[in-house]
Amino acid sequence: MKLITAFASLVVTAQAFAPKQHQSRLILPAVRVTSEDTVANTLTDQQPRWLIEDFESGNRDMIKKMEVMLRQAQLDITKAIAEIDGGATFQEDTWERETGGGGKSMVLKDGKVWEKAGVNLSVVHGTMPQAALQAATERGNPAGKGDKVPFAACGLSCVMHPRNPHCPTMHFNYRIFQTSDNWWFGGGTDITPSYIDVDDMKHFHGTLKEVCDRHDPEYYPKFKKWADEYFLIPHRGERRGLGGIFFDDLNDRDPEEIFEFCKDAVNNVVAAYGPIIEKHKNDEFTDEQKRWQLLRRGRYAEFNLVYDRGTIFGLKTGGRTESILMSLPETARWEYDHHPEPGSPEADFLDACKNPRNWV
Amino acid sequence: MKLITAFASLVVTAQAFAPKQHQSRLILPAVRVTSEDTVANTLTDQQPRWLIEDFESGNRDMIKKMEVMLRQAQLDITKAIAEIDGGATFQEDTWERETGGGGKSMVLKDGKVWEKAGVNLSVVHGTMPQAALQAATERGNPAGKGDKVPFAACGLSCVMHPRNPHCPTMHFNYRIFQTSDNWWFGGGTDITPSYIDVDDMKHFHGTLKEVCDRHDPEYYPKFKKWADEYFLIPHRGERRGLGGIFFDDLNDRDPEEIFEFCKDAVNNVVAAYGPIIEKHKNDEFTDEQKRWQLLRRGRYAEFNLVYDRGTIFGLKTGGRTESILMSLPETARWEYDHHPEPGSPEADFLDACKNPRNWV
Repeated sequence: MKLITAFASLVVTAQAFAPKQHQSRLILPAVRVTSEDTVANTLTDQQPRWLIEDFESGNRDMIKKMEVMLRQAQLDITKAIAEIDGGATFQEDTWERETGGGGKSMVLKDGKVWEKAGVNLSVVHGTMPQAALQAATERGNPAGKGDKVPFAACGLSCVMHPRNPHCPTMHFNYRIFQTSDNWWFGGGTDITPSYIDVDDMKHFHGTLKEVCDRHDPEYYPKFKKWADEYFLIPHRGERRGLGGIFFDDLNDRDPEEIFEFCKDAVNNVVAAYGPIIEKHKNDEFTDEQKRWQLLRRGRYAEFNLVYDRGTIFGLKTGGRTESILMSLPETARWEYDHHPEPGSPEADFLDACKNPRNWV
Repeated sequence: MKLITAFASLVVTAQAFAPKQHQSRLILPAVRVTSEDTVANTLTDQQPRWLIEDFESGNRDMIKKMEVMLRQAQLDITKAIAEIDGGATFQEDTWERETGGGGKSMVLKDGKVWEKAGVNLSVVHGTMPQAALQAATERGNPAGKGDKVPFAACGLSCVMHPRNPHCPTMHFNYRIFQTSDNWWFGGGTDITPSYIDVDDMKHFHGTLKEVCDRHDPEYYPKFKKWADEYFLIPHRGERRGLGGIFFDDLNDRDPEEIFEFCKDAVNNVVAAYGPIIEKHKNDEFTDEQKRWQLLRRGRYAEFNLVYDRGTIFGLKTGGRTESILMSLPETARWEYDHHPEPGSPEADFLDACKNPRNWV
């Protein structure tokens, strides 16, 4: 087990940019989390060092429930992806955060289908960094006051970069965040192809919409729009890809209901993404199409390194660099002043990144 | 001529991180810069729209002098580099900043020796962004108070990425910055190889030291250390390369003296860098060496996108994206949890990035 002074990408993604929201909040009963409770909740056979003596409130049962659910999802998703790949296995790295909690990264390298695919579980707690506190407050989601606001969080995040330019990159993240004064869920699933295949987008967005609709018919339109806003690269005036769903600060109903939505969403990631990869994994492609894919991966790296608050926050607060940056593509490319030929499939894709479309 | 709502990379690099300094300052006489003066100072045959009515102070003559010097240096350096390349030409893009000033980017693509090389001239002025004002004050270099602090600035910046992993990447930037209350010079030249060649480093750092020593024997040790601090990637605990010289907020003596130092430094860039490229441009290399170079370019992109204040500031304040990001390598690579083999040349290089060495 690696010992690191780390923030997981979970803590990090909980920082995600979110439009200001005003909503009623359920106040959960304060629960004293003791050392014994958390030791029983270890991530490995060895006991991580939980250090949350001052954590006096929190929906401990919900965080535990989320952890159990996401832990299973990590195993199920990596198993399904390894099967689709047909040649690769996921390398496991269990790591510990010195100031509370830890996680498990599962990373596939040099697969037949995927160049790089990572799924990272984080279960962390401790004292909320002031920057995180301020960001939550600025989003209209005050998390607590003072120097030592305790927090606990649990999440699963994933990015998968295939080799074939006709196979899209996919990202998802689902998490719960708990502080002394507040709690919320956040997450989303989004897709970054290099070319538009309308049927693929109908399937991907359609699957997400079905999941959303089972829980609230307002979710899909709201969270689709939110993804289109969040994944914008402002200095390019374009999104990194073709979106999906994104939400944060969600705490406007019984947490059990939101948990069930997150569970449904994470358990449908493979259903949304897998068939697209199966369909295209053996597609032929040209050097020019590969080059275009690498240019788009440059944009992906730009978004993650310049704008993704989770990534920046994680890197600047001593997160586990390898777990945070497993989101970066294996290869990215930048060409000076590149513009796709008008009327080309590349220009059509770029237009969809600049002007988000409705797929379902 | 392109019309853009842009900040040049100059304004941007003027934001460069610099340790707090305390030094005596020369106060230059306030000079009224009129529209007539600046129109005469155009960057192209067409007249850029200078909009600096409220700019009431400034060492206008020094900024003009710097512009003339850097404009010539841009031509000299690109000519010399194109000759070493033997197959490429520099593409010129003249651009204009709507709120004052403009610039000229010269970019080489797909050369025999260089994958990508860019030299960017910026001559800009207008109202100082509050973030820039705050950053200067935090560096111990207060630039003015209020909402509308006028500024003028001129600089030349350059990054060159060769193909061969035995040929280093090189970056330089020299600039003058003027506000209502203050003025300063900043700049530096630094090198980013993928492998250590001690003779190359002795030549490169030795040339920089000779330049520095002609102006102040304290410059080289001070600015070499400053470069080692500035080019650190904190989340990796390593620098992006093997350093050089870096300075900012320099205004502790007659501006003519600092101008002469900048002129000497920029006019010795080719002397410092050219012979290293001539020596290695036909070196044989393996796929593994190329892969290592691309991994190091991933680090270069990380530094520029996450930490280089100039880059971030430029992107977030509406700079000309293509001019700012011409600093990014054509190709970069990220592998999960990569570590060079102990005792290998790659491990030796990484050690020098973690523990800066003295080369002269």
